[in-house]
Amino acid sequence: MNIAIYGYGNLGRGVECAIRQNPDMALVGVFTRRDPATVTTLFETPVYAAADILNYKDQIDVLIICGGSATDLPNMTPTLAEHFNVIDSYDTHATIPAHFANTDKAATAGGHVALISCGWDPGMFSLNRLYASAILPEGKDYTFWGRGVSQGHSDAIRRIPGVIDARQYTVPIEESLEAVRSGSMPTLTTRQKHLRECYVVVADGADKTAIEQQIKTMPNYFADYDTTVTFITQEELNRDHGGIPHGGFVIRTGTTGVDNAHTHTIEYSLKLDSNPEFTASVLVAYARAVCRLAKRGTVGCKTVFDIAPADLSPLSPDELRATML
Amino acid sequence: MNIAIYGYGNLGRGVECAIRQNPDMALVGVFTRRDPATVTTLFETPVYAAADILNYKDQIDVLIICGGSATDLPNMTPTLAEHFNVIDSYDTHATIPAHFANTDKAATAGGHVALISCGWDPGMFSLNRLYASAILPEGKDYTFWGRGVSQGHSDAIRRIPGVIDARQYTVPIEESLEAVRSGSMPTLTTRQKHLRECYVVVADGADKTAIEQQIKTMPNYFADYDTTVTFITQEELNRDHGGIPHGGFVIRTGTTGVDNAHTHTIEYSLKLDSNPEFTASVLVAYARAVCRLAKRGTVGCKTVFDIAPADLSPLSPDELRATML
Repeated sequence: MNIAIYGYGNLGRGVECAIRQNPDMALVGVFTRRDPATVTTLFETPVYAAADILNYKDQIDVLIICGGSATDLPNMTPTLAEHFNVIDSYDTHATIPAHFANTDKAATAGGHVALISCGWDPGMFSLNRLYASAILPEGKDYTFWGRGVSQGHSDAIRRIPGVIDARQYTVPIEESLEAVRSGSMPTLTTRQKHLRECYVVVADGADKTAIEQQIKTMPNYFADYDTTVTFITQEELNRDHGGIPHGGFVIRTGTTGVDNAHTHTIEYSLKLDSNPEFTASVLVAYARAVCRLAKRGTVGCKTVFDIAPADLSPLSPDELRATML
Repeated sequence: MNIAIYGYGNLGRGVECAIRQNPDMALVGVFTRRDPATVTTLFETPVYAAADILNYKDQIDVLIICGGSATDLPNMTPTLAEHFNVIDSYDTHATIPAHFANTDKAATAGGHVALISCGWDPGMFSLNRLYASAILPEGKDYTFWGRGVSQGHSDAIRRIPGVIDARQYTVPIEESLEAVRSGSMPTLTTRQKHLRECYVVVADGADKTAIEQQIKTMPNYFADYDTTVTFITQEELNRDHGGIPHGGFVIRTGTTGVDNAHTHTIEYSLKLDSNPEFTASVLVAYARAVCRLAKRGTVGCKTVFDIAPADLSPLSPDELRATML
């Protein structure tokens, strides 16, 4: 299986690492919109100009698109799906249907397979919501995120005048997790589900009280949450908050039996040292499935919901049944 | 979707309940090897003689076979798969490949779909082993069971002379769960993974010391475990140990990135008030998928590994993408 990476940030580097863990895959190269001469890859993977990618059509079985959801993927994925089998990690939940429709049209026209919104949420969390709700129709599910770094919330703090750098952690509230696990199916407000912890570096002489107030009252980002603000030095931020951990929980409880007398709890959780590297690992496993679908003549846009689990594994169906079932 | 139940014990009753939670399904009837006149169903579902089932071929889309793995299913499933789309919960892991081959041959000959070994282990736990190992190829996974009632171990205690009744709980050892979650990938012995708790009712005048010794030294069942034996009255057993709870954990940890510097933990867990009712709920969700596969002309034997998640849900692909992805 010949894989290529389109876009080389944290996610692209994660894909480069993940491919090395899968002996049935080879990495053709990295395609970048920057000047290829300025890009150094982790493992001497060749770097090519994004503009030249159509010259490599015959060498690439699946193209893993590692762009951002806000501005890159909505155009990139449909455009590339006309020429390649592609996979992306588009994660703006509200606009997935539109992204699906655009990508499906392009992939179908080009005779290719596209898989969108693959990662952990959307991705593995979505799968667990689907499986659990199909098994326990009379129930309720909850998704909690964290403890982990939210890039969007960190950026929002950085835009405040006087702030030099910031890191924001989303933290699930333990008492709410326990209430959910108990099967009581509580109604939880935004504030009851997550805390927001902010570590902020400010310029000399900045008004810390005003900045703290600005953060805590910021609409959408912080106003609906209990938020803590801790001022630290750039040195401390680099030393203690340099990683990109994340994770979370999908929990569904439901009832079965005569008079719904029995309660069941299904819980799926992730604890990730590196958000982009884990997302990259999911993308690479699903790239295997995309390659297999394309070989069977499938065309159009798919999501993780459409992929049979066996297609993710390098093992044969016989091996899977003998060792994992 | 017209569903029928073949075999009416705890699992069959669980299926009868679960069907009522799925408005797109109708229950045709229960087929039993007993005299139908002696069987009373929970919700006035009609009862028919198993011997007459071929007369109902045209009325049944999927037959859910609720027999035991030891003696019933190895013959029942292949025999019935020649005439019906079927699903079973065959759970003898070591002989799944043979059961698959026999069922595949019969289902293919009859032009039907069969899905075997569906439930939670094998079933949902198997899926989680597969997904996690495909995502984190450089890692290790662990399955823990419990706290829950093991029917086989309870039966083994009941066979000891002087024992009137018994209930055995399999209990995962918390320290080992924590060691696994930490990412240290420990090597665990049988004794380190699970405890066995036994609640035993004995006849008047029975030699409790000898019975306790016999339990604790029983090969395969107890000798390799730390086992506790508590003698109680039949009344206490009925009052405190009447349920059939179970559950467990599938945990995989693995590493990614340059020098495998980052560790990730994927954990799936179940906490079930009723083992047979939850298994029944999984069977019913997968019966929906079997029905869809049959309508598409698929034939032969499948497992949960072969089923795209979307096929379990009553929601359309559009609805799934808009609400769960």
